[in-house]
Amino acid sequence: MAGSSFGTIFKITTWGESHGKGIGVIIDGCPAGIPLNAEWVQAYLNRRKPGQTRYATPRKENDTVAIESGLFEGQTTGTPISMAVYNETQRSADYSEIAGYYRPGHADFTFDAKYGFRDYRGGGRSSGRETIGRVAAGAVACALLKELGISVTAYTKSIGTISAAPSSFAPDILSSERDASPLFMPGREASDAAEEYLKDTMKQFDSAGGIIECIISGMPAGVGDPVFEKLDANLAKAVVSIGAVKGFEIGSGFSCAQANGSSNNDAFLGIRNGRAKKATNHAGGTLGGISDGSDIVLRAAVKPTPSIFREQQTILRDASPVRVQVKGRHDPVIVPRAVVVVEAMAALTVTDALLVNMSARMDRIREFYRPQA
Amino acid sequence: MAGSSFGTIFKITTWGESHGKGIGVIIDGCPAGIPLNAEWVQAYLNRRKPGQTRYATPRKENDTVAIESGLFEGQTTGTPISMAVYNETQRSADYSEIAGYYRPGHADFTFDAKYGFRDYRGGGRSSGRETIGRVAAGAVACALLKELGISVTAYTKSIGTISAAPSSFAPDILSSERDASPLFMPGREASDAAEEYLKDTMKQFDSAGGIIECIISGMPAGVGDPVFEKLDANLAKAVVSIGAVKGFEIGSGFSCAQANGSSNNDAFLGIRNGRAKKATNHAGGTLGGISDGSDIVLRAAVKPTPSIFREQQTILRDASPVRVQVKGRHDPVIVPRAVVVVEAMAALTVTDALLVNMSARMDRIREFYRPQA
Amino acid sequence: MAGSSFGTIFKITTWGESHGKGIGVIIDGCPAGIPLNAEWVQAYLNRRKPGQTRYATPRKENDTVAIESGLFEGQTTGTPISMAVYNETQRSADYSEIAGYYRPGHADFTFDAKYGFRDYRGGGRSSGRETIGRVAAGAVACALLKELGISVTAYTKSIGTISAAPSSFAPDILSSERDASPLFMPGREASDAAEEYLKDTMKQFDSAGGIIECIISGMPAGVGDPVFEKLDANLAKAVVSIGAVKGFEIGSGFSCAQANGSSNNDAFLGIRNGRAKKATNHAGGTLGGISDGSDIVLRAAVKPTPSIFREQQTILRDASPVRVQVKGRHDPVIVPRAVVVVEAMAALTVTDALLVNMSARMDRIREFYRPQA
Amino acid sequence: MAGSSFGTIFKITTWGESHGKGIGVIIDGCPAGIPLNAEWVQAYLNRRKPGQTRYATPRKENDTVAIESGLFEGQTTGTPISMAVYNETQRSADYSEIAGYYRPGHADFTFDAKYGFRDYRGGGRSSGRETIGRVAAGAVACALLKELGISVTAYTKSIGTISAAPSSFAPDILSSERDASPLFMPGREASDAAEEYLKDTMKQFDSAGGIIECIISGMPAGVGDPVFEKLDANLAKAVVSIGAVKGFEIGSGFSCAQANGSSNNDAFLGIRNGRAKKATNHAGGTLGGISDGSDIVLRAAVKPTPSIFREQQTILRDASPVRVQVKGRHDPVIVPRAVVVVEAMAALTVTDALLVNMSARMDRIREFYRPQA
Repeated sequence: MAGSSFGTIFKITTWGESHGKGIGVIIDGCPAGIPLNAEWVQAYLNRRKPGQTRYATPRKENDTVAIESGLFEGQTTGTPISMAVYNETQRSADYSEIAGYYRPGHADFTFDAKYGFRDYRGGGRSSGRETIGRVAAGAVACALLKELGISVTAYTKSIGTISAAPSSFAPDILSSERDASPLFMPGREASDAAEEYLKDTMKQFDSAGGIIECIISGMPAGVGDPVFEKLDANLAKAVVSIGAVKGFEIGSGFSCAQANGSSNNDAFLGIRNGRAKKATNHAGGTLGGISDGSDIVLRAAVKPTPSIFREQQTILRDASPVRVQVKGRHDPVIVPRAVVVVEAMAALTVTDALLVNMSARMDRIREFYRPQA
Repeated sequence: MAGSSFGTIFKITTWGESHGKGIGVIIDGCPAGIPLNAEWVQAYLNRRKPGQTRYATPRKENDTVAIESGLFEGQTTGTPISMAVYNETQRSADYSEIAGYYRPGHADFTFDAKYGFRDYRGGGRSSGRETIGRVAAGAVACALLKELGISVTAYTKSIGTISAAPSSFAPDILSSERDASPLFMPGREASDAAEEYLKDTMKQFDSAGGIIECIISGMPAGVGDPVFEKLDANLAKAVVSIGAVKGFEIGSGFSCAQANGSSNNDAFLGIRNGRAKKATNHAGGTLGGISDGSDIVLRAAVKPTPSIFREQQTILRDASPVRVQVKGRHDPVIVPRAVVVVEAMAALTVTDALLVNMSARMDRIREFYRPQA
Repeated sequence: MAGSSFGTIFKITTWGESHGKGIGVIIDGCPAGIPLNAEWVQAYLNRRKPGQTRYATPRKENDTVAIESGLFEGQTTGTPISMAVYNETQRSADYSEIAGYYRPGHADFTFDAKYGFRDYRGGGRSSGRETIGRVAAGAVACALLKELGISVTAYTKSIGTISAAPSSFAPDILSSERDASPLFMPGREASDAAEEYLKDTMKQFDSAGGIIECIISGMPAGVGDPVFEKLDANLAKAVVSIGAVKGFEIGSGFSCAQANGSSNNDAFLGIRNGRAKKATNHAGGTLGGISDGSDIVLRAAVKPTPSIFREQQTILRDASPVRVQVKGRHDPVIVPRAVVVVEAMAALTVTDALLVNMSARMDRIREFYRPQA
Repeated sequence: MAGSSFGTIFKITTWGESHGKGIGVIIDGCPAGIPLNAEWVQAYLNRRKPGQTRYATPRKENDTVAIESGLFEGQTTGTPISMAVYNETQRSADYSEIAGYYRPGHADFTFDAKYGFRDYRGGGRSSGRETIGRVAAGAVACALLKELGISVTAYTKSIGTISAAPSSFAPDILSSERDASPLFMPGREASDAAEEYLKDTMKQFDSAGGIIECIISGMPAGVGDPVFEKLDANLAKAVVSIGAVKGFEIGSGFSCAQANGSSNNDAFLGIRNGRAKKATNHAGGTLGGISDGSDIVLRAAVKPTPSIFREQQTILRDASPVRVQVKGRHDPVIVPRAVVVVEAMAALTVTDALLVNMSARMDRIREFYRPQA
């Protein structure tokens, strides 16, 4: 089944394995006339690049992107944009051992169950490196959104028991505070505390989980399509499709389960530029699955890295039990490098929804196709 | 945009508004040869029917389903199955007032923002009645799953601060305990406490939220498609597409954010009938987005009913402020009637994934098309 | 597999069998704000209604359409439009005989091969009645196209060896001449000759084929998406998906195979309202699969009705040979009643392409989402 | 709009321009376990490679394919297969002139109308080089079909007024006779006559059209999905989506318009291996859009190459008239190099239909998911 595509109009298709020739993505349906170059995309990729801190795998990859089609004289042409990152270190030797057993918390068993065998080198297609295609495509989506005054900003909200303390949720401040932290966690003290937490975790040969929050600002109202292509439903799919994400919430999320209607409802105060002004934003920016013009606020729960430097119980391919200690290069926490992945998936989702929304009303269609004098 | 369809192979398309002629669904891509009749579908619809307890809107609807195509001599034929429920009480008068203002927590504003105007009668397409089509289609999906020994069981896990106490998670016991409670909450004491909680809430002219849990048992391993059509990603979309759902989690969900890898990993113990035997099931039944053969366990956070019998601050269509008290017939809590909707969406998602999965391996394809002697 | 849907944005899904409860269609993704009522749709359905001439099956059906959702106060709301025609005469008795053998030229054998059994009454889903859903949806597409000044006009171009002789291809004249003929063939003499041809054919207990031509006028340039969603490619699929159609061509079509580049190329003369002015239109209105603003001209080859009142060689379900004479009510020629079906499929295709095209350029997207003062 | 993808389960997405970095394709949804290597794919690409005869553009390209993902130890893994051909001669200088005017018969005008500007170098995305991705993907589809005993064989049926004279339609003989001809036209005399015809045409600085026929042998019955995903409808789309194709027919095609039912119907004689044995095959292998097990026979009408070495009338981008003589490297006839493209598109279409068909019947689904002892 064709599971490597995402989106309806602005559609991406990713390819590549951890230890194959490389990783890439095609964006099909990108509008013509968006200013774009490889540097813009590279800046996003650099945020998920390994080897930058002690909290990330030391695997040495420059992750340099090449744009191979769809650009002409500095602009998108409306034809497919193909981007690729070629792998530099493919130390398959590291991984030959794991061909024989199923790593707990990984997709080794399920890939074998589905396909009969697997490219076991570095997790193959189920590796975190698969997200390179998402991030490159997300960067292009962000270039489009920028033209519309829309920004997408994700950050590390928590690692283990430590929570971020951003001084503001304004996109510029939030992202600048985020980028000052090696863990992409706004607030110096919080970031330091999270580093301590991680050091402890690593001392115990263990790994940590956390939460990523993402804020989409500048959205027009009216975007998203009832009843199955709701904006929040597609954001949920987008975010949960990221490896290691086990939960999604929008606005007040799970806390609404204990709230009352009187406190959870957001009072409408007025309309500005077609967007709702509300007293609160428990809804997180959508009502009935359609954007109301407020900030869209979502969160992803990220599980602890399953690869740990401890012995674990598992089985061989023939189902016989074995105790193993997974080797290789691992991040003690997935969250910081996944921040830009969440941003990318959110950007891709709203970009597609914005384009799809253009045909919702006959008056706008008539205007669009009115012959020019 | 065509937002009213769900699924790739087993695809449903719903139609209808709260106060139009009726609500319906077409299932396209349902395999031929499934025993089916209207009674089977009706049993599912009855679980979301209004007017059965004091905790549901007293709107009087029998919600009787008619199957209008796709059946012949008691079996599905492989052609589209059209099912419809015609509305009986369409008291539009009740709703003429809300044409002029935007109800907090509802989609009135966003429908206007998107389409320029709306069918305001009873929420139109954004009404909870829209879920009738989902439930009828979900019932057919469950008939298919039954043939494969797969069951889908949802229940009220919590209402406000009160949590269910099922004596077992075995599908039969769980569903029987659920059906003994007017709130579909297993455990007599818990159910009683939740009733008290709701009575208090209603006394304060307020509403409550809660959590629905859904367990899918009997899944084969290998179902779900990396990297965007992961089983958990599609379950997330399916569940969040239900009105009032603000959060989704699978397995340990948000609690994994504070866990460590050593405790969160599920040790493999063996393989039985192609399914993984694991020491724990923190993953909730999927690894890398593919089923591992364990129970799939997911949860939905449901917000409090936005319609409450209190005065609230809002605006008229011209953006001028107004204080309103929403009239009409409302549930004080959405959760109990949404239980079967979550079940339906989960069933639809795994059914589609099971069918899509049949073309994953060449050896199985060869076997499928081997000429019969 | 979900084969009963057509379109990406303006998406239709049809349901129903010849002798079931009825036939219907859902249009999902129809823009809000199109004036529409049942009379408009009925006028299209009347053109394919049986029993109007001696050249059509005498089956008695009024084919009265009911619009069951998606309309409010005379306008489309943007939500799914469900339309149904309920069958009135379901004389299954007529058809019980054909349960046992495979009619030559019909889909009896292939439905059994695919699904294991079939609803044999009147051809079930493979009956020509299936096109009711296409025509009803096509009528709505035409209502949208009318708002944009686009007309779609099909007519009987030939029956057997007799060809139409329209005095003009201007939509109004062409359609008025067409509607003056019981065979929907413009030109009185031609129509009379075709009637004679058909009478002869019927005397021999035989049936005839023919060609339908369809002209789409008023198209803007730039519609259609390379490389697989080309406008002509989608028109080809749309038209060949109609039962009994065995060939499709656009512009000069098959005759271009013997032409030279120098004569087949259309010289550009200028641009008016964004549309190409060309010396000729051998291309038939598309270049590279994108509309150039000229008339789109396509043709469909329609096979002779397979049901004839002669004895034919065939087999029983157990493959043993048998000679049969198909009973029931049949058209001696399919072409006239299929004219409006071709029109509908062409209208659906260009409507979808027009909506999809709105997101092709960033400058138009920026303009679309520019905040209103 | 995302127009560069084709297929539902076995889905391809192509990218690249004539004078960009290269051309490529991703196959998503290819089953695991198909033996595959670059040589197999290269053999197909070589059949459309330029510069092999005097009847093809002398552009020098080796068109060497690289498989960049989805293969492991000589087999497909079930994950996306990315293949690329990098351009070697990108003499953009040749094409700078055509930036300013619209070549007759080309997509220059329509790309500008759609996107506002275009990559004018060598036709950019509308170049015939775009078909490289189709052919590479088609080669993989053929590898899958081979596993099922299905062959797809296309050949030059006619060039201008000259028709092929194959001594047999058996796949092996037909393809061997085809490959003996520089024009891929079976029958030595016919091929020679076509060469003479082309030499004459070239002397007049003109170009020729022709017809390609394609035969799919070994198909099981029951493949294709009513009513819009009919096998013939999807073949029509597949074939007409190829640049320069202006017509499509299956079986008796346009000639059925003058036939009678009594002669056009194919009498059933028996069933062998689940396939229909018929006295004739006017239907061309499908009934009701579903394969009957006979050979599928289709034809494509290909227009004369629009680039000719004669002066032609056209316009500049500002719509002012100009007479031009298109420079560059052109084929005098498109047909021979398009033969393998038709083969590829047909193979892709039936491959997808075969995979989609696996979920049509509950009995086969039950068998598929029956737990293995």
